[in-house]
Amino acid sequence: MLLKVKFLNLFAGRPVAIMHSRTAKKLAVYVNERVRIKKKGNNDIVAIVDIATGILHEDEIALSGEIIQELGLRENDVVEISAAPKPKSVEYINEKLNDKKLSYEKILSIMEDIVDNSLTEAEIAYFVSGVHINGMDIEETVDLTRAMVKTGKILGIRCSVDKHSIGGVPGNRTTPIIVSICCSTGLIMPKTSSRAITSAAGTADVIECLAEVEFSIEKIKSIIKKTNGCLVWGGALGLAPADDKIIQVERLLSIDSDAQLLASILAKKMAVNASHILIDIPFGENAKVTKQGAIELAKKFKKIARKLKLNVETVLTDGKEPIGNGIGPVLEAKDVISILKNDKNRPLDLEKKSIMLAGKILEMAGKAKKGRGEKLALEILNSGKAYQKFRQIIEAQNGSLKNLDKKLKLARLSRDIPAAKAGTVIEINNKAISAVARAAGCPAEKQAGVYLNVHNGYNVKKGQPLMRIYAETEEKIDFALEALKNLNPIKIQ
Amino acid sequence: MLLKVKFLNLFAGRPVAIMHSRTAKKLAVYVNERVRIKKKGNNDIVAIVDIATGILHEDEIALSGEIIQELGLRENDVVEISAAPKPKSVEYINEKLNDKKLSYEKILSIMEDIVDNSLTEAEIAYFVSGVHINGMDIEETVDLTRAMVKTGKILGIRCSVDKHSIGGVPGNRTTPIIVSICCSTGLIMPKTSSRAITSAAGTADVIECLAEVEFSIEKIKSIIKKTNGCLVWGGALGLAPADDKIIQVERLLSIDSDAQLLASILAKKMAVNASHILIDIPFGENAKVTKQGAIELAKKFKKIARKLKLNVETVLTDGKEPIGNGIGPVLEAKDVISILKNDKNRPLDLEKKSIMLAGKILEMAGKAKKGRGEKLALEILNSGKAYQKFRQIIEAQNGSLKNLDKKLKLARLSRDIPAAKAGTVIEINNKAISAVARAAGCPAEKQAGVYLNVHNGYNVKKGQPLMRIYAETEEKIDFALEALKNLNPIKIQ
Repeated sequence: MLLKVKFLNLFAGRPVAIMHSRTAKKLAVYVNERVRIKKKGNNDIVAIVDIATGILHEDEIALSGEIIQELGLRENDVVEISAAPKPKSVEYINEKLNDKKLSYEKILSIMEDIVDNSLTEAEIAYFVSGVHINGMDIEETVDLTRAMVKTGKILGIRCSVDKHSIGGVPGNRTTPIIVSICCSTGLIMPKTSSRAITSAAGTADVIECLAEVEFSIEKIKSIIKKTNGCLVWGGALGLAPADDKIIQVERLLSIDSDAQLLASILAKKMAVNASHILIDIPFGENAKVTKQGAIELAKKFKKIARKLKLNVETVLTDGKEPIGNGIGPVLEAKDVISILKNDKNRPLDLEKKSIMLAGKILEMAGKAKKGRGEKLALEILNSGKAYQKFRQIIEAQNGSLKNLDKKLKLARLSRDIPAAKAGTVIEINNKAISAVARAAGCPAEKQAGVYLNVHNGYNVKKGQPLMRIYAETEEKIDFALEALKNLNPIKIQ
Repeated sequence: MLLKVKFLNLFAGRPVAIMHSRTAKKLAVYVNERVRIKKKGNNDIVAIVDIATGILHEDEIALSGEIIQELGLRENDVVEISAAPKPKSVEYINEKLNDKKLSYEKILSIMEDIVDNSLTEAEIAYFVSGVHINGMDIEETVDLTRAMVKTGKILGIRCSVDKHSIGGVPGNRTTPIIVSICCSTGLIMPKTSSRAITSAAGTADVIECLAEVEFSIEKIKSIIKKTNGCLVWGGALGLAPADDKIIQVERLLSIDSDAQLLASILAKKMAVNASHILIDIPFGENAKVTKQGAIELAKKFKKIARKLKLNVETVLTDGKEPIGNGIGPVLEAKDVISILKNDKNRPLDLEKKSIMLAGKILEMAGKAKKGRGEKLALEILNSGKAYQKFRQIIEAQNGSLKNLDKKLKLARLSRDIPAAKAGTVIEINNKAISAVARAAGCPAEKQAGVYLNVHNGYNVKKGQPLMRIYAETEEKIDFALEALKNLNPIKIQ
C-alpha cells in the first residue's frame, strides 16, 4: 500500500509508524505489530504500528525520527507499506530461553533482526534474559561476536591498538589519558566506547561534555588521520550496532551478562581491526567480579580471542573502591583534565592506573621494551605531550578545551554529606556510589553525580564532608539522599 | 508542571505521553522514561515519554487512549505532569532473574507496578523470563496468586462453580457448552476467560464472534442475575488485571510458565469467589504437558488450592490431538453451535469431552449423585435447554444467534490441503496445527484458521483434503503454507 509521509517530529525510542485505524485494518495489522516501510530505490525498514485517527488521513503515515533519517524521507514522500510477519528469530530467542545451544546461523538471524528493528524491546529483553540466565558457551560467544561484527560496519584501517575495561568501578576514567599517551607515540588508537550500562558514566558520556562523539565512519577516518586516534561513541559509528541495542535493553534492569560482555568488547575491537588489545579486569568486593571471577573471565577472553585470531592481553586490577574523585560525566571529565594538565590536586590513583595500562600497551605494540612502558608513559604525560594530543583529538571532534568552566559546569543543586562519626574510611562501596550518582540523574544528566572527598584509609572527623552530591532538581537530590540512606556507601571505623 | 491535554486519538499498545522536546527538558525526562499524570481529584497514572515537537506546543501534552479513558479526560483539560522515578519493583525483577526467592511484598510490588503501568513491556518480559527459567516455588506461587487478586477487583457474588483448561489442545472449545449446561441447572457460573496465549483462539476470542465480551463488574452481575452465568473476557473485567498484562507480554514469545499458569488460573477463580473449581489438564505428546507433567501439575494445583482454601478438582484428559474440527475463533464458534443444536455433523469428540467435564461439575456442586453427572449433562444438552441457555447468555451480552451465516463468515481466501499419500492418519500435531492457524492470522483475525477434515485413525486416499486453511490475504495464506511445509502437522502411514 502506498502512503504519504507526514512529519510529526516524533521520537519514540523505537521505530514507530503511526497510521489511521482504517489504514491499519486494510493492511490487516494491529497496534504493536510490525510493518515494512520501503522508499523507492532505498533499503526498507521495519517499524511498530501505532494507531492515531485524530491527526492523519487514511492515505498518510507518520514515521518516527529514526525512520525518517534512515530512509532519507521528506514530507509528502510516498512510501510502500506492507505487513511484516513476526520474525523467525523469535523462535531462536525462545530456544535460548529454554536453554538450547544456538548455532551461528540462529545467532546471526537474531542480530540481523535486532539491527533491522524487527525485534521489539520486550523481545530483545527475552534474548538478554536467556543469555543472562542460561549463559552461552565459548563457541556460542565466538559466534555472537562474529555475528555482531558481521551485522555492522568495519572501520577499515590497517592495524591499531585498543584497550577496554570491563567496568564496575566508578570514576576509573583511564581511557582518555591512555589514548592521549599512546597516540603521542604514533600508535593508531581509534577508541570507540559505549555509554554507561550499569554505571554513572561511560567514556562516551564523559567525552561528550567536551566534544562530539557521534561521527560517520568517513569522518572518524579523517580524525584518526589527523590525530592517530579518536574518542567516540561506538553506537553511532555502526560498528556492531546490535550490541548497542542490546545494551539499551540491558540498561533497563542493569544487566550485564558474561557472554554479552565478552562479545560486546571483542566485536568492537574486531570492527576497528585492533592488532593489540589490552583488557582491564578490575576485581574485588563490590566490583563486577571477584578475584576468582576475574581469573576465569581472563581465561575466557584468551580462549575466545584465540578462536577469533585476536592478540589479547588481560590485566587484573584492584577494583574494590572508586578510582578518581568524580563520578558522573562532567565530574569525571574534570578528573581527566586535571591529570593531563598535571594539576596539583589531580587524583593520583587514577593517574597511576592510567600510566600502568598505557605502559602495557606501549610494550605490547613494541614502543617500549618489556618493563619500560610505564616510564615512557609517565614521561609523555609529564612533558605535556599527552595533553596536546588530547586537545588535538577534542578539536578534531568539533570540541575545544576553551571555557572549561562553562563547559564543565556542575548541576544547579548540591549537597555535602558529612561523616556521621570520626574514624578511618574502611570501605567505599562501588555499586552503592554508582546507585547514588544514578539516583542524582546520571548518566542522562551529565552535570549530576558524586564528588568523593575521601578514599579508603583516610582519617575523618565527625561532620567532615565525605562527598558532595550534584543534581538538577530537588526531587533528584531527594532520590540520591534516599539511596544514600538505604545503601550507606562509605563505612567508617 | 501543568499541561493542556491535546487529543490525537492515539493507540500505542502502552500508555504513552507525547510532549514537546523543551517540555521534556524542563521536566528532566527523556524518551522512554516515565512521567506521572494527575488530573485534579483523580487517581494518577504513569506513562512512557515520547517526544514530538511538530504537533505540540510547549504547554500541551498528547496522551494515548488508555490514559484518556482511565482519567476520564477531555480535550484542553489541564493535567499535572511530573517525572516518575524508575520503580522499586525493577530491583525485585532483577532478583528473580538472578534466581532469588521473592517475598509476598516484593511480588505484590511488581503486580502493583504492572497494573499501574509503571513497568514497560521489556521490564515485564524480564519478569516473565525470570519466572519461566528460574521458576517459583509453591509459596511464591501462592503469593503471586494472592497479589494478582489483591491488585484487581472482585466480582462480589456469593458462591459459584468454575472450570478451566490449561490449554495446549487446538479446538477443545468445551467452555461455552459446559457453562450452558451447568447454568441450566441453576448453578452460578460466571466464566471469565483469557484470550489466546500460544494458541489460535481463546474462549473470549470465540465468544466475541457472537457477542460482546468486555463488561463492567456491574453489568456482569446483571448478566449473571438474568442467566446464572456469563462468557466474558477476564481482562476487561479488571479481575487480576496484572495477569492479563503478563499474558500480553508472554504472547510475544509464546511463553506460558508453570507458576504464572497456576497463579493466573486460580487468581481469576478467587476473584469470582468460586466454591467448586474443575481443572482440565490435557496431556500427551505435543500437548502442554506429558502424563507425568500432568500428574505433577495436578499435585501443585491441589497444594496451592489448599493453601488458598479453594475446593479444586483436577481431571487429566487425552490431549494428543486437536479436539473438534475448527481451529480459529469463528471456526470454533461454529463447532460449539453445532453441538448445542445437535447438528448431524457436529464434532462428537468435543461433545463427549464437554459432557464429561460438565458431569463432573454437576457432581461436585451436588446437582447429580456421584457417577450420574454425565447422564444429567447429556439430557440437558439433548433437551435443547443448553442451547436456550447459551442463546440467553449471548443475548444478555448484547449479541444474538440470528444471521449466523453472516456473523460466522469465514476468511476471504481458503486453500484445501490434500493428502500426499493414501493411508491412516497416525498423528495430528497440536503445536504444528496451532502454528499453521496462527500463521494464517489467528487469533487477531477471527475469521482465519484451519478446518480439520480428519482425526487420528481416519483412513484417507491420496489427494483427499486433510484440512482447509482460511486467511484474509494471499500473504497470510503463504505464511500458513510455509508453516505447513516446515511442520508437516498430519502424519499418514
